[in-house]
Amino acid sequence: MIGRPVPPPRGSQPRSSRPSSVGAMGIAEPGGPLVPLRVERRAAGPRDVLIDIEFCGLCHSDVHAGRGEWGARTLPLVPGHEIVGIVRTVGPEADDFRVGDRVGVGCLVDSCRDCEQCDAGLEQFCGASVGTYGARNTRTGEYTQGGYASSIVVDCAYVLRIPDGLDPAAAAPLLCAGITTYSPMRHYGVAAGDRIGVLGLGGLGHTAVKIGAAMGADVTVFTSKESKRAAALELGAARVVVTGDQEAMAEASDTLSLLIDTVAAPHDLGPFLATLRRDGALIQLGLPSGPMPPVDVGRLISRRLRYGGSLIGGIAETQEMLDFCAEHGVVCDVEVVGADALNTAWDRMVAGDVQYRFVLDAGTLRATN
Amino acid sequence: MIGRPVPPPRGSQPRSSRPSSVGAMGIAEPGGPLVPLRVERRAAGPRDVLIDIEFCGLCHSDVHAGRGEWGARTLPLVPGHEIVGIVRTVGPEADDFRVGDRVGVGCLVDSCRDCEQCDAGLEQFCGASVGTYGARNTRTGEYTQGGYASSIVVDCAYVLRIPDGLDPAAAAPLLCAGITTYSPMRHYGVAAGDRIGVLGLGGLGHTAVKIGAAMGADVTVFTSKESKRAAALELGAARVVVTGDQEAMAEASDTLSLLIDTVAAPHDLGPFLATLRRDGALIQLGLPSGPMPPVDVGRLISRRLRYGGSLIGGIAETQEMLDFCAEHGVVCDVEVVGADALNTAWDRMVAGDVQYRFVLDAGTLRATN
Repeated sequence: MIGRPVPPPRGSQPRSSRPSSVGAMGIAEPGGPLVPLRVERRAAGPRDVLIDIEFCGLCHSDVHAGRGEWGARTLPLVPGHEIVGIVRTVGPEADDFRVGDRVGVGCLVDSCRDCEQCDAGLEQFCGASVGTYGARNTRTGEYTQGGYASSIVVDCAYVLRIPDGLDPAAAAPLLCAGITTYSPMRHYGVAAGDRIGVLGLGGLGHTAVKIGAAMGADVTVFTSKESKRAAALELGAARVVVTGDQEAMAEASDTLSLLIDTVAAPHDLGPFLATLRRDGALIQLGLPSGPMPPVDVGRLISRRLRYGGSLIGGIAETQEMLDFCAEHGVVCDVEVVGADALNTAWDRMVAGDVQYRFVLDAGTLRATN
Repeated sequence: MIGRPVPPPRGSQPRSSRPSSVGAMGIAEPGGPLVPLRVERRAAGPRDVLIDIEFCGLCHSDVHAGRGEWGARTLPLVPGHEIVGIVRTVGPEADDFRVGDRVGVGCLVDSCRDCEQCDAGLEQFCGASVGTYGARNTRTGEYTQGGYASSIVVDCAYVLRIPDGLDPAAAAPLLCAGITTYSPMRHYGVAAGDRIGVLGLGGLGHTAVKIGAAMGADVTVFTSKESKRAAALELGAARVVVTGDQEAMAEASDTLSLLIDTVAAPHDLGPFLATLRRDGALIQLGLPSGPMPPVDVGRLISRRLRYGGSLIGGIAETQEMLDFCAEHGVVCDVEVVGADALNTAWDRMVAGDVQYRFVLDAGTLRATN
């Protein structure tokens, strides 16, 4: 028997080596709605994982990109970067995954892998990072199409492991909303007992509250709506400040070490900088739709404050976040919708009419397409 | 001889226990110029140091305060918080000083000494900190009057030691311009080899260049004036970027870890945020005279930048800065003026016509008053 060539084990072989056409929902025409369409997925290579998508979260960015609010884009466009699914095939070099594993894909599906940012595990800042949809992947030649689809092929280095115990639909938004809020809290060193704030209680905000509370922080939620008070407390906030309540705002002044600002509309930061203690930081996560009002420089100086931004997180940190969420039982509060309700869901999301994240049941695409 | 009471050594006794009236230059009437006048100094107490002032730097803040540009103030007002002088008397509890010592006084002459900020050695952020001029000192009951005067009485806890080897006139501006630029560089961890920037080349800016270079940093100076290029290089800059030169600005993009912004006029931060690498910080030191243009939030997010402020420094850090400057031979470039030239010096400072700091020779006050 010695010397006889051994064939590689069958399970590690790519079972699909040809491109495939898969059912999806996307924008086909400028100004048009999401419609059923088919997109090509590349032939799965040796490092690729072919994933049958179970769920995909609906992020506000999807609407901006789909509706061309962030500039021109190539159509058709299939949005979606909060993807959870089951591995159907793994290439022979995608060692960390097995057929049947539950996995996730977030906002990135590739990067240069050879720059200062990639070396630091901060692929989101790589100049050649490839978004999960609407981006040109020079390595594969593809124009990427996202997770409002029945399957996707992704290089194993950009595939996350969804830990057991996380509900797959409720975990999907962690791939964007979760890491976007987790990363700045870790970066700015949130520790148990710290007093932090969360401004806005939407998809990002409600996730920030849950993750902050799970880190042991004492979380103050700032919202313009008194009606959100009970829900915020339920999510884990220690207290709620209605931003129009001058007395409550004054009471909150000089109390926080970090404020996570999830509001994407232009807004005056003055009242929120006032809530920060010396050396505190206000970190804005959403790109506002117009210019922000001027920053109160005197406040920055007189308290040595920092006003900054943060952008999702790297792949390793995203896995760390998923593991953290599994350990602490954190998932998003979601409303699962079928493909036929996607356009309504987008409209409701823009109107703020969701608690707190829509998730597409990708199983319904197979019926639609 | 045993048991016989020993009188305290004579040198440690306060020699002056009564209030004194001293010659000064100050604003006596709203809208008026600096005029010769006399101010009361309190009786030196057991913890006090009575200092014969040799030199006092002229800071832009003096003009703002003196001319009422920062709001109402009690007149007469004697400005000046960059004070160097010689100890004339020390109280018995002012152990660290001896008659004849060369000492300095910066922007603060008191604070509560019992809060989180004071405990951290960050007296500048204490809510009860007492400015060297124009402030009410509740501990002593005084309205403070500054260093455009022939002497001053200061609690020893707020008196700095001027190390041997520092020219007293050229060291005076270190007490404000020096610590204001040193503190953020230390706080943001500037190390040898780091690439940092300095925006503006006035009193603060030229000091920042010298201190940054002494820390071993590679300093890029940003100035609107080509005419300042040679001087900036002379001060220790590795390179100079004229801000109107689009090509040079583009070349500077994504190069810096820290930018010290010394410009106090409103200015667009966009081009300067673009010079920062991922995780870089732009720290503004001067309170602008009007609202700043909106901040480019997309830039903050896409590079995880921080935009912040910084306020002078604590007493211990100010001593550290003076010792650092002595060790590295750093002093300010100054033009020494007499009391009769103070009003002209203020006008020239406002016009930017000084390289780089005026310093009052306080000896000329004795002739004037």
